[in-house]
Amino acid sequence: MSILVVGSMAFDDIETPFGRSDNTLGGSSTYIALSASYFTDPIRMVGVVGSDFGDEHFGLLHAKNIDTEGVQVVENGKTFRWAGRYHYDMNTRDTLDTQLNVFADFEPHIPQQYRESKFVCLGNIDPELQLKVLDQIEKPDLVICDTMNFWIEGKPEELKKVLERVDIFIVNDSEARLLSGDPNLVKTARMIRSMGPKTLIIKKGEHGALLFTDNGIFSAPAFPLESIFDPTGAGDTFAGGFIGHLSRCGEINENEMRKGVLYGSAMASFCVEQYGPDRLNELDLLEIEDRYQSFLDLSRIGS
Amino acid sequence: MSILVVGSMAFDDIETPFGRSDNTLGGSSTYIALSASYFTDPIRMVGVVGSDFGDEHFGLLHAKNIDTEGVQVVENGKTFRWAGRYHYDMNTRDTLDTQLNVFADFEPHIPQQYRESKFVCLGNIDPELQLKVLDQIEKPDLVICDTMNFWIEGKPEELKKVLERVDIFIVNDSEARLLSGDPNLVKTARMIRSMGPKTLIIKKGEHGALLFTDNGIFSAPAFPLESIFDPTGAGDTFAGGFIGHLSRCGEINENEMRKGVLYGSAMASFCVEQYGPDRLNELDLLEIEDRYQSFLDLSRIGS
Repeated sequence: MSILVVGSMAFDDIETPFGRSDNTLGGSSTYIALSASYFTDPIRMVGVVGSDFGDEHFGLLHAKNIDTEGVQVVENGKTFRWAGRYHYDMNTRDTLDTQLNVFADFEPHIPQQYRESKFVCLGNIDPELQLKVLDQIEKPDLVICDTMNFWIEGKPEELKKVLERVDIFIVNDSEARLLSGDPNLVKTARMIRSMGPKTLIIKKGEHGALLFTDNGIFSAPAFPLESIFDPTGAGDTFAGGFIGHLSRCGEINENEMRKGVLYGSAMASFCVEQYGPDRLNELDLLEIEDRYQSFLDLSRIGS
Repeated sequence: MSILVVGSMAFDDIETPFGRSDNTLGGSSTYIALSASYFTDPIRMVGVVGSDFGDEHFGLLHAKNIDTEGVQVVENGKTFRWAGRYHYDMNTRDTLDTQLNVFADFEPHIPQQYRESKFVCLGNIDPELQLKVLDQIEKPDLVICDTMNFWIEGKPEELKKVLERVDIFIVNDSEARLLSGDPNLVKTARMIRSMGPKTLIIKKGEHGALLFTDNGIFSAPAFPLESIFDPTGAGDTFAGGFIGHLSRCGEINENEMRKGVLYGSAMASFCVEQYGPDRLNELDLLEIEDRYQSFLDLSRIGS
């Protein structure tokens, strides 16, 4: 089923203990769309780029059958840029530079043919913009939303309005605790779910992810990777795999959401193996299924 | 099958954000033995206490059919005492006081009737003492060993000699990284397993546990507890549940070890619900089985 993805599009300069990668295709919607593209189509992207976003960049998206009709190209504008450096343990990073550029004036416009998309994924952008997206779409089956500490601290009221209108909210553990003000994740989950989203996914990085629904709690393991090369985009890639699986199977129930969390985790585990979205550009379905099976094996218990 | 448990016995003064509990029965072997006692018998304890360790304390152990013939009582001596304060997040604690007392001169003596125990659990004590225990026992089926950063830093050579002689080594993640010098847990596990123990369990506190064997990796979730009251002894309780399950089922294979990790996790999740070993004194088998099923449910995926 169709997925509408709205979020940032960027060029990233990434520095890790292993080296660096400059002018790397990035942004939340880029990772979400690339990840979801392995599961379903059409994937419809809405975002904004400058004229420095060339055919070679669009080509990477089109190669995955991602529809970029909704991407606004600002003539003589420059695409959003982010530069960051990861620490030795890869769990923490410093932002070295942020240049919003054309993203500063981004007004999401959802093309008419996108408005009936059945699945909507709101990548991590200003909650005011997320609300504007929600105002333009018609009866989606599922709305998923991501955010970050910057918006939790900076626009809490707008974020609360978004939360009232989404089905599934995805955050990492520190963001969830920031939002609830409680260190306990069970209490945190209850508090966030009472704000609107019936389903909550808390990502814990190298410790996996937790899915909270009316039916209980699902704990997904993390893939014990020998080397993590670049964590950039892993969270967005997770969201893309999750929504991609749900869209592909066409059912939204407890078990498919659990599988979705594992597919999301599998996609994220690929993402970190190379710089930026490089690994996401070259996957095949067999690899993804193999990795998914490895996730199942990680918690398999015989009777 | 019989389990020999060697470790510390103590009185703890525990301070948490919720209150305090003084003169609480503690020590690694106490928690291991109490936890294992729900699975199998006989449990045979070797340790040392002072004359302040009275009938009421022995009574708590005997109530669980724990054999304390191997516990040395030093006349006019004082039992090992530890005092600690947990921080708000319950993941970190400060040691406020340590009084080794009779534990300072502890020389483990394994009674003749204990020497043929099939399962041996070396609680967290000086690796030199762990070696002395290993020298006194005869052909056990399984030797499990725990340690802590104090010994990894203070007696690395002695610890290496212990590791050459144990089957299963249990440590937490920070201790494992300290021992390997590598932040990556997969590399860390390979390094530690090359030192001797074929099987390694890395405990990750609120993030569960990882089991590394020749057959692969098993990732156990943590129980998402709403309130953690007192984490003291949780790691030892885990070890007790793990070895208890293996001893009960009498088989040591991949699947039973995986189940053992879940039973250990279940016991640890009870332990933290009350001060010290209070919760471990009042469990029943049905509760344990229910909690174990909850652990299975946490990672259950239908086809």
